[in-house]
Amino acid sequence: MRARVKILDVFSGRYSVFISEEEAKKAKLHPDDLVKVESGKKTIYGSLVISNLVGSGEIGVSKDVLQLHSLSEGEVVTVTPVGTPESVRYIKKKMHGEKLRKVEIEAIVRDIVDRKLRDIEISSFVTALEINGLDMDEIAALTVAMAETGDMLDIDRKPIMDVHSIGGVPGNKTNILVVPIVAAAGLTIPKTSSRAITSAAGTADVVEVFANVSFSLDEIKRIVEKVGACLVWGGALNLAPADDITIKSERALSVDPPGLMLASIMSKKYAMGSQYVLIDIPTGKGVKVETMEEARSLARDFIELGKRLGQYVEVAITYGGQPIGHTVGPALEAREALSALMTGKGPGSLIEKATGLAGILLEMGGVAPAGMGKKMAKEILESGKAWEKMKEIIEEQGGDPNIKPEDIPIGDKTYTFTAPTSGYVTWIDNRAITGIARAAGAPEDKGAGLELYVKVGEKVKEGDPLFTIHAESEARLDQAIVFARRTEPIRIEGMVLQRIGNI
Amino acid sequence: MRARVKILDVFSGRYSVFISEEEAKKAKLHPDDLVKVESGKKTIYGSLVISNLVGSGEIGVSKDVLQLHSLSEGEVVTVTPVGTPESVRYIKKKMHGEKLRKVEIEAIVRDIVDRKLRDIEISSFVTALEINGLDMDEIAALTVAMAETGDMLDIDRKPIMDVHSIGGVPGNKTNILVVPIVAAAGLTIPKTSSRAITSAAGTADVVEVFANVSFSLDEIKRIVEKVGACLVWGGALNLAPADDITIKSERALSVDPPGLMLASIMSKKYAMGSQYVLIDIPTGKGVKVETMEEARSLARDFIELGKRLGQYVEVAITYGGQPIGHTVGPALEAREALSALMTGKGPGSLIEKATGLAGILLEMGGVAPAGMGKKMAKEILESGKAWEKMKEIIEEQGGDPNIKPEDIPIGDKTYTFTAPTSGYVTWIDNRAITGIARAAGAPEDKGAGLELYVKVGEKVKEGDPLFTIHAESEARLDQAIVFARRTEPIRIEGMVLQRIGNI
Repeated sequence: MRARVKILDVFSGRYSVFISEEEAKKAKLHPDDLVKVESGKKTIYGSLVISNLVGSGEIGVSKDVLQLHSLSEGEVVTVTPVGTPESVRYIKKKMHGEKLRKVEIEAIVRDIVDRKLRDIEISSFVTALEINGLDMDEIAALTVAMAETGDMLDIDRKPIMDVHSIGGVPGNKTNILVVPIVAAAGLTIPKTSSRAITSAAGTADVVEVFANVSFSLDEIKRIVEKVGACLVWGGALNLAPADDITIKSERALSVDPPGLMLASIMSKKYAMGSQYVLIDIPTGKGVKVETMEEARSLARDFIELGKRLGQYVEVAITYGGQPIGHTVGPALEAREALSALMTGKGPGSLIEKATGLAGILLEMGGVAPAGMGKKMAKEILESGKAWEKMKEIIEEQGGDPNIKPEDIPIGDKTYTFTAPTSGYVTWIDNRAITGIARAAGAPEDKGAGLELYVKVGEKVKEGDPLFTIHAESEARLDQAIVFARRTEPIRIEGMVLQRIGNI
Repeated sequence: MRARVKILDVFSGRYSVFISEEEAKKAKLHPDDLVKVESGKKTIYGSLVISNLVGSGEIGVSKDVLQLHSLSEGEVVTVTPVGTPESVRYIKKKMHGEKLRKVEIEAIVRDIVDRKLRDIEISSFVTALEINGLDMDEIAALTVAMAETGDMLDIDRKPIMDVHSIGGVPGNKTNILVVPIVAAAGLTIPKTSSRAITSAAGTADVVEVFANVSFSLDEIKRIVEKVGACLVWGGALNLAPADDITIKSERALSVDPPGLMLASIMSKKYAMGSQYVLIDIPTGKGVKVETMEEARSLARDFIELGKRLGQYVEVAITYGGQPIGHTVGPALEAREALSALMTGKGPGSLIEKATGLAGILLEMGGVAPAGMGKKMAKEILESGKAWEKMKEIIEEQGGDPNIKPEDIPIGDKTYTFTAPTSGYVTWIDNRAITGIARAAGAPEDKGAGLELYVKVGEKVKEGDPLFTIHAESEARLDQAIVFARRTEPIRIEGMVLQRIGNI
């Protein structure tokens, strides 16, 4: 059928195409059928909704479509039903345990990006990957296909460095220090980050406290060619869009098939043109990777995948058993990160990790001799050069380079938990810490989060403050207090953990 | 949030719950989030749509919801976000190859019926079943859970017989003869059938040509207690609703995991209270089950599952290599079936199969001595008693018992294909025959379909008519002709298939 477009004020989380009951009957179409909408060279696939919100001769489109496609009110389009996409056969092949060929993986990724595959098919693909896995040939093909079906950055500076943490540790503002240190040494590092998904603050959420993070690829190119670095939100870009779509199924099923995780991370690095990539694998209780053995196996896969993609990859296995630094939540973390850059000083866990990672990158990029990277990174941080570079980045990203950390507003509704007993801090529960910060309103409420006064191994006396919750509203503060009481975020025990009697 | 219900004229194929942008922001809700709508004792789960079609203090619900739930305009409800349902953990267990416990299967089925699980989770479950399968304990638990989460029929007549064909053969109007034969012998047979999904006519589509097929369970009880039988559409009932929801994923992925297929069929028989069930497994090229070995293995599974459910199951493996009878399409098949009942005569394939199946049921039900069922079925058919019973069924189902087969209107736009050469019919392609009938408009256009003049093994001369396509419009007729020309529905070859020269 041919019809005029009507833009409907609807966000359904999918591309919805509305037609009237009469037209649906005529064309024998049913709700949720896959249809193709064509106009000139544009082709958009969507899910059918039958509704008399549109008249005959009209089709409605949900605003979801407009996020990537230009369709205008009144534009004349053709709507036709679409059968089962060919790529469903390849998903079935993977279900049945067969290895997929490069062209088959490309077809699946292309159809995901085109929205020709929807929740049912994508979830089936994710499930088949969780069960039957992917070998390195398949992962490499998936990575390249994911990158090439999206936008790619081409920066006229070499070498391009990159750093990525696979995440899971609360308070991990490390890369906000790493990026300016590396750039201050003359290397190029166009860093994209995510917003928090299940954490209390993604790097992008933290940076957004003092600078803009949403830029087009052209703007990023300009910024990076000028100051050598950026700290932006990857989600504002069309980098490896298949990954952003697939993640919905992974999250609903709470699975993260290893091959898909590798492709997800490395496709974005590939799309950014990164040549030297450092992967940070936080390891410890309460993060994604709990044992050194798993961490080493994953590290080998990253390095191998990098080789297939023509990237030089190194991996740092870092301690992820407790939060990094003393703050969790966007504004609190922004304060801590900026203060460390400004003064060259800060919590040991933050300074050590940041200079450690930056040092590896300096060696990878050939500006520090082997074994001297960390020392050089520390000098750059302490000399104020990293802070100078950070000010350039902030200015290019539309923030105030004269910002003072203490001027950043934080939640003024606070509550402090104290030690119920004297003893040693034996464990800090990452998941509980994240949960408290989220209950307090992070990451949406920028000022929400918590400040930790103790770390594992420290001695505390009964009544000593352990942590303060910050929230922007009393209601949120109460929620966070309730959550904190239900969990055991910080465990304190006597030094003698167990006393065995006279045997 | 509390809000007033606004019924939106929208069918989206899911339970959609609309809230305004402002409310969504306030509650931190995103498109497609799972939400719970509560009003008194009612709880409905739906997918969030963000839209200013509703104001603040209002929630919109799509009409899909009203098909099973009563919600009225202006009713005040509470809307709350819902986390990941517990049953997702059990789906993951199946992904990881573990056996599911009865309570875990029950939780999955309950959440499917409650719409707490949506496309992503259900598709993952189907995929995990396709890969890892179910054992007989799991299948039995799934069958009972599917039946018990829907409505169940309790008929005050014993024994209750049932017959089911797993399908795939075009023109299979057999059960329209079997049901009245069995009921005429005094047995009770409340037969529910499906409409065509991928075929040209389901039994319900054919019966609908001369009687109503949509009844409530109470009406069915009344009809069956009065005349001993019915021929109704199962889809109008709330029998094993989890199956109707799951089938959407199976169809999109074109998979049919064996355990799920068994549970799907047997849960509906269980819900109908059937005690003696005959399963017809058409076997041959171009149907679901292609080899005798597969058919026998499936037969064993049906019988074993029946034992677990307390049902006595027998299986008939029938020839499915070509269409049954001479007609395909609702009205054409209705004519052929009614004519066979009226006269006791008809195409050999139809009469043989119908009396064969009916005979087994007569023996299972104890009204015919072993080995005598088929003879008795034939007598009932030829004596006109089956026709008398059919007239009672038609009358109870609101049709005209004095109907004459030749009065049933069939598509008057016709085109006849003739034999391009002389020879023997060596093969009739079931899938092509179905495709032609569907291209002609079946099953929606009741008069569309085709009439076959030849069957496998028959001798034809060049120019002899092979089949006539019937359609209700020229456009549809043309489509069917084009489709028929692209395929090879009937293959004719000389008796000597290959001549090997002088060796």
